[in-house]
Amino acid sequence: MSSKEYNIVSLIRKKRDTQQLNRDEISYLIEEYTKDEVPDYQMSAFLMASYLNGLDEDEASALTHSMLHSGRVLDLSDIPGKKVDKHSTGGVGDKLSLILAPIVASCGVPVPMISGRGLGHTGGTLDKMESVPGFNVDMTLERYQQILAKCNMVMAGQTEEVAPADKRLYALRDVTATVESIPLIAGSIMSKKLAEGIDALVLDVKFGSGAFMKTREEAEELAEALVAIGEDFGKETVAYLTNMNQPLGYKIGNWLEMEESMDGLQGKGPDDVMEVTHMLAGTMIMLGGKVSSVKEGIKMSHQAIENGQAFEKWLELTEEQGGDTSVLKDFSAYDHTEYSFEFSAPQSGYISEIDAYSIGMGSLELGAGRKKKDDIIDPAAGIELKKKIGDQVKKGETLAVGFTNNKQLTETAINKLENAFTIREQSVEKLKMITHRVDKNGVHEM
Amino acid sequence: MSSKEYNIVSLIRKKRDTQQLNRDEISYLIEEYTKDEVPDYQMSAFLMASYLNGLDEDEASALTHSMLHSGRVLDLSDIPGKKVDKHSTGGVGDKLSLILAPIVASCGVPVPMISGRGLGHTGGTLDKMESVPGFNVDMTLERYQQILAKCNMVMAGQTEEVAPADKRLYALRDVTATVESIPLIAGSIMSKKLAEGIDALVLDVKFGSGAFMKTREEAEELAEALVAIGEDFGKETVAYLTNMNQPLGYKIGNWLEMEESMDGLQGKGPDDVMEVTHMLAGTMIMLGGKVSSVKEGIKMSHQAIENGQAFEKWLELTEEQGGDTSVLKDFSAYDHTEYSFEFSAPQSGYISEIDAYSIGMGSLELGAGRKKKDDIIDPAAGIELKKKIGDQVKKGETLAVGFTNNKQLTETAINKLENAFTIREQSVEKLKMITHRVDKNGVHEM
Repeated sequence: MSSKEYNIVSLIRKKRDTQQLNRDEISYLIEEYTKDEVPDYQMSAFLMASYLNGLDEDEASALTHSMLHSGRVLDLSDIPGKKVDKHSTGGVGDKLSLILAPIVASCGVPVPMISGRGLGHTGGTLDKMESVPGFNVDMTLERYQQILAKCNMVMAGQTEEVAPADKRLYALRDVTATVESIPLIAGSIMSKKLAEGIDALVLDVKFGSGAFMKTREEAEELAEALVAIGEDFGKETVAYLTNMNQPLGYKIGNWLEMEESMDGLQGKGPDDVMEVTHMLAGTMIMLGGKVSSVKEGIKMSHQAIENGQAFEKWLELTEEQGGDTSVLKDFSAYDHTEYSFEFSAPQSGYISEIDAYSIGMGSLELGAGRKKKDDIIDPAAGIELKKKIGDQVKKGETLAVGFTNNKQLTETAINKLENAFTIREQSVEKLKMITHRVDKNGVHEM
Repeated sequence: MSSKEYNIVSLIRKKRDTQQLNRDEISYLIEEYTKDEVPDYQMSAFLMASYLNGLDEDEASALTHSMLHSGRVLDLSDIPGKKVDKHSTGGVGDKLSLILAPIVASCGVPVPMISGRGLGHTGGTLDKMESVPGFNVDMTLERYQQILAKCNMVMAGQTEEVAPADKRLYALRDVTATVESIPLIAGSIMSKKLAEGIDALVLDVKFGSGAFMKTREEAEELAEALVAIGEDFGKETVAYLTNMNQPLGYKIGNWLEMEESMDGLQGKGPDDVMEVTHMLAGTMIMLGGKVSSVKEGIKMSHQAIENGQAFEKWLELTEEQGGDTSVLKDFSAYDHTEYSFEFSAPQSGYISEIDAYSIGMGSLELGAGRKKKDDIIDPAAGIELKKKIGDQVKKGETLAVGFTNNKQLTETAINKLENAFTIREQSVEKLKMITHRVDKNGVHEM
């Protein structure tokens, strides 16, 4: 709570004139906004001034604090152990939560996870879970804590009770061209994550064509902002910068990614998916206090796959949240799409680029994503890649297969695919997946 | 009218990213805002982006065009002659309109003048006129044209019909810390002035402690922006940069300034007031086509005072607009304030500074101005200076006299006066009143 009253125009003017606002001033602004005492038009002027003049570490932390305490902050101290979550800034084919959460939970570290839905070219964890018939992600915070206590993990959607100020601010930023600001993004992410009642956090900050941050430098800046806020709140926070210059794995689309995740949990996951999964899971296991190094954590993560405990954990959670586990055990039992089509290589050579944004948009066009917030998605629609960067292809060989229940959508999706692949004559190296680690000690090249 | 539709968020983003908006885009934004199709929160984000990233000449001109055409634009072509008005950016003791308008009108150049009210430390022409019993400044645009046709001049307040978009934008800027932007100020001033149906315009752009522009450089920038817009609309526009580092003249307050103006019209005006008046009036007479040089215009302006025609013109207008001319001819017939007090020099020496802002605020404290928009002012309240910069004073000699009808207000006013005067031992030069002329050919030192 801010301790005194401020003139809102003076606060906007301060930020406009590149002066720093103190914690009390930021608290006042956010509290009054949440109480509808500050109108949207003043907040949007403040947001634009913040976008253009920046917010420093202290300001971003104060903003996070105010948004966090605008709603309910979970107290998970009844549940033994250090609670650790992961957050990803989102990318095309990013299904890692579905694999790493059961790995980490099955290793004894509680994982309380509140996820989002897909918007634009990236998918959302909740949509992927809901592709499993019956899987329920909407619940009260009481039920959320119950599942966590029982399964050592829970995966749910955001409720109105969590960080309502962030929800309102995000909606306002969306319509005032103030979304792409590192401190505003960082505050938005961290206010929601800190409300979950976590003790530590691992961040997957993606860069490249399929990510929101297009360059590694931007991703690094965001990672530093996120880690600074986490540490400021006394939560150990580790971020990895990971490569999103092609889709992660081979499958893009909600059910398709569930399939690939189940493969991953059973030791049949693609190399890139599993490399990042084990790094993130290993770090979470270490932060959860089960081992003393990330290396040991990674080893434990591998074991959880090999001995089947991670897959078992996922089946247990699915059942607890009402999902049909039979389709997870046997993909042929699933109601797949009516139509599919193949997209072939126009020439021979080596794949040098797969534009993840175009693949994501292609999958969206087939019905897997939303163009507007209330669009209904087709859980079975999507794209399966047959080749990835570095692979050699012959002219006419299949590069990707598209799946949809609406044949009319294929043409637009094919246009997207035509722009996605670059083939050249010389051989091409595979992408380095994890380039840097960012923690309280700074940025470390991997 | 803009010729197509635009995405408002993209327009905000463009300005945020320092790109130029074309005329069509700016038209669309302002038109939709005026139609309530663009909410205040998007406009305020755009205003803050414009404040911080600027608007170039073309953008400022397009903005002016859109605001101008959001309401009625007067057509004065029925009235013969080139219509010329003056606009001042406002300062303490600035009563020049009351002297120069009748001078110019009496010389045969029609003067259609829409003025504003005082806010903050500066007075408004309308408030000064209304200090004369019966003087009416609210009228329809039809009556406005009638008076102009009859008296060759008219002085009225802004109506709802003139530039309504500017009115809404100004109110929004006021509460979002986006007032002090040169292109936004220029667009606001020019949209209202161009709506008057003028053919040419003279601008008095003030700088110094009593003006909105504190430095000469800022004033020059604003003058250049105003002249560029005027010329872009095909209206010959000349600006002068004038010194507002002490109040203009000796009298500050609504009726007090009316008295000093009547003195001016009868050849008894203070030197600084008359120097600027004759320069502005002479330029207006030249722009109106009555003479071929400013020098000849100034000569004609002096004659209009000497032969009494300017004072006669003012009496004619006052009568036409319902005002009591007897008080103008005999100040003793006026209902002066109940209380007055003297403020004396705390030491002997030469006056080196008179902070015009403090004098303006002192006058406001005595009842002459408004702290809030709907405060009622006391027409007779104010301050009369007895000394100005460069004058020698003895300790205990009267520097200023305060007038009020509410004795309780004197203490705060005295505090303001105590901060206003600086006295030093060495002799001090008088201020140079007019430092530069700005026209389509550039900036010229005077």
